[in-house]
Amino acid sequence: MTSLLPHPAREEIRIEAVLHALADPVRLRIVRALAEHADGLSCGVLDLGVTASTLTHHVRTLREAGVVHVRPRGTSRISTLRRDDLDALYPGLLNGLLAAPR
Amino acid sequence: MTSLLPHPAREEIRIEAVLHALADPVRLRIVRALAEHADGLSCGVLDLGVTASTLTHHVRTLREAGVVHVRPRGTSRISTLRRDDLDALYPGLLNGLLAAPR
Repeated sequence: MTSLLPHPAREEIRIEAVLHALADPVRLRIVRALAEHADGLSCGVLDLGVTASTLTHHVRTLREAGVVHVRPRGTSRISTLRRDDLDALYPGLLNGLLAAPR
Repeated sequence: MTSLLPHPAREEIRIEAVLHALADPVRLRIVRALAEHADGLSCGVLDLGVTASTLTHHVRTLREAGVVHVRPRGTSRISTLRRDDLDALYPGLLNGLLAAPR
């Protein structure tokens, strides 16, 4: 996986960082949206009720924790859920999370 | 489930609070230890390298989030993992978490 932005390799992903990244209502909504868009999304299209700079912060937190991969496309950035990595490291965690009542 | 300490009912448990409670190295070690002791443990027996008051704080955070149940036994408090509740709400989450590399 190559990218202009730094991403932790699978073996660098730490469960505490993943849980911290997920333990936020806005980030959880991002993850749920990405789970429904396997090809990725520009998170700016989501109606999250936060400013662009706050959204950037949330996506960076998810990226640095290893939860999402972010790649540039034109002037926007496309985020995808690192489902393969998360499922390999923590089998069942992501599905359990996505099953949570809203 | 009755107790002298307040616990959220299953339907009151919120994923954000669960994830926040789990996103801490000490609390994660408590959860891993409790997962191996279905009958519960007095967390004071664990070698966590924290003071008694810090341990009390961590156990309270886990209890208030709905991750553990705490009952008095003599002068100590026995914590048990609320595995049934967590597995019902978030199937796979706990097992995925416990599978995480240490």
